[in-house]
Amino acid sequence: MAQVSPRSQIEPFRVMDIVGLAHERQRTHGDAIMLCVGQPAAVLPDSVARAAANADHGYTPVAGLPELRERIARWHRETYGVDTRADNVVVTTGSSGGLVALFVACLSAGDHIAITDPGYPAYRNTAKALDVAVDIVPVGPEDHYQPSPELFERFAPQARAAIVTSPANPTGTIIAPEQLGRLCRWAEEKDVWLISDEIYHGLSFGPETATARSFSQSAIVVGSMSKYFTMTGWRVGWLILPDELVEPVKNVQGNLALCPPAVGQYAALAAFDDTASFDELAARYATNLEVALPALEKMGFSVPVAPDGSFYIWADGAQLTNDSQKFCADLLDATGVALAPGVDFSASRTHVRLSLCGRTEDLVAALERMQEWIKNS
Amino acid sequence: MAQVSPRSQIEPFRVMDIVGLAHERQRTHGDAIMLCVGQPAAVLPDSVARAAANADHGYTPVAGLPELRERIARWHRETYGVDTRADNVVVTTGSSGGLVALFVACLSAGDHIAITDPGYPAYRNTAKALDVAVDIVPVGPEDHYQPSPELFERFAPQARAAIVTSPANPTGTIIAPEQLGRLCRWAEEKDVWLISDEIYHGLSFGPETATARSFSQSAIVVGSMSKYFTMTGWRVGWLILPDELVEPVKNVQGNLALCPPAVGQYAALAAFDDTASFDELAARYATNLEVALPALEKMGFSVPVAPDGSFYIWADGAQLTNDSQKFCADLLDATGVALAPGVDFSASRTHVRLSLCGRTEDLVAALERMQEWIKNS
Repeated sequence: MAQVSPRSQIEPFRVMDIVGLAHERQRTHGDAIMLCVGQPAAVLPDSVARAAANADHGYTPVAGLPELRERIARWHRETYGVDTRADNVVVTTGSSGGLVALFVACLSAGDHIAITDPGYPAYRNTAKALDVAVDIVPVGPEDHYQPSPELFERFAPQARAAIVTSPANPTGTIIAPEQLGRLCRWAEEKDVWLISDEIYHGLSFGPETATARSFSQSAIVVGSMSKYFTMTGWRVGWLILPDELVEPVKNVQGNLALCPPAVGQYAALAAFDDTASFDELAARYATNLEVALPALEKMGFSVPVAPDGSFYIWADGAQLTNDSQKFCADLLDATGVALAPGVDFSASRTHVRLSLCGRTEDLVAALERMQEWIKNS
Repeated sequence: MAQVSPRSQIEPFRVMDIVGLAHERQRTHGDAIMLCVGQPAAVLPDSVARAAANADHGYTPVAGLPELRERIARWHRETYGVDTRADNVVVTTGSSGGLVALFVACLSAGDHIAITDPGYPAYRNTAKALDVAVDIVPVGPEDHYQPSPELFERFAPQARAAIVTSPANPTGTIIAPEQLGRLCRWAEEKDVWLISDEIYHGLSFGPETATARSFSQSAIVVGSMSKYFTMTGWRVGWLILPDELVEPVKNVQGNLALCPPAVGQYAALAAFDDTASFDELAARYATNLEVALPALEKMGFSVPVAPDGSFYIWADGAQLTNDSQKFCADLLDATGVALAPGVDFSASRTHVRLSLCGRTEDLVAALERMQEWIKNS
């Protein structure tokens, strides 16, 4: 029998398992409330559905439709007042496809990448699958859950690339513009690829979300249609790249993916021009935060740093559990409420991630069930 | 300045460059005829468009929609009379996304993979991007452009995986069932992963296309909605996997891609139930072959083995050029006709690949322009 590669022995993305269990719960009990996944419960604007229906179904250019690259560049220019050109934009198969192409283009086997804990698990698992060494940089409440040049230097002195996520997943914290500027200058000085994951931009509860491209032409920006624009299942994202990375990334993407999904690209073009419903949803997340935060604290969760944006709450359940996976499984089993266990995002065994994506009334119902269950456990 | 990784120094997929040039030609001259790419000029059945319009836009399970996995398994059972179960099917982001997940799951850095020349370029470029060593196995007209256990043993004695493509890209040849059976038994004996790329199944000009799963439960089948089903831009494909590879591949895909495009999966489900238009197109390719083959030979191209299937002709232009890239660029520039230079597929510098996907009248016009240009060059 041929052998499976140790490369596949990375951790599974457990959130996706919980999604499966929650779907099964819904099928058997009809009462599932999914607070486990960053998936906006969106109904797309008619204009987007129409664009998809009329889309060309063929391959697009490797880097995406020229008009979408230009539209993304314009969005970036208008949002941040920076000089972003379409030539530096590569449309990708979700931000996931962008990260794969980017890691291959920037990092060789044995190179090191700096990734925070807590942080998005696919960063480290994708890096490991590509034989890139992962240096974990712990960030705590005292760091506003965000890295600094000092933390990167201390925990990842060999890193050739470093990832900053703001608003962050799972904590929702936003990095201050001056801190992002410091990180960009540090990366330039140290010849480190600074990867600024900005897929949650557009979802701030108040603080400014700066783009790394305001501070450095060498910074790499990761973007997505999945969060503010709610288009998760279409698998469309983008990279904004320094000049010298454009051809390498296109080269890798052309071979590994041919092109991003065509229909989703046409849908994305329409979405940029019809954002009222997305803004309404962003406002809903702020409402949901106000509902969820006091309720969680009343149950015994601790949220030392409230999220500045995104649609997540990173809550420490140390008073309630020392095994968040079991806690989440038991909670789902008893109540139909699905949370994401923190183990995907962190070495912590006491944290959970709650998503604010859903309808407020569902969130209220879920929180009531949780409170009741915790009270009686 | 941070450094680009040598991993990105794989060859570009030049066909995609030609696609870009052809699009530009169409914009400036309005006369482009694309014979360069395996992209059926399809109008999808209404049922498929309706399914897409009514699709859920959220993430699907990592391995794809359960009903699509079951539908693919049923298709495979009914087409080949084998016992294929949904549990062994993983839906992927095109066959490209499937190959990436598969290579990571099956092959470690430094492992060897056997790939034929001529062959599909993304096989070797994707392998190289993942630090897998590529052993090129030359196959010529005398081999019907297909590998054998003897050729694999001779040119790739260290291979831990070997790819067989039938109908083949770029040659269109189909491997005889008994030869495929021999290869499957050889792979089982040698503990080699046999990867049978069957994405052109459904497109035969006569000979039987057998599935490797008829001969071995250890064989891996690669499938796609892009060829027979014409759904290129939706980026939906699949893998049929031996039991022991299912979890590793899901694990890799969950991290590297989250899930395949959702809307395309719903469209694919509808496409399996409405295939009359796809069969009509397959018949058109046969007509186009009858038109193109004599015309190419009249121009001075040699086609020692006519294709058995797919929608390609692999033509040797040794009498016309010793630089197929320049030949194709000059041809496009002079006439608006885009062919794929053979350099993507082979070390040969004299071959071109012509696609039979388009409308017959466009093909006739393209061939006339080519003939005129060659006569006057």
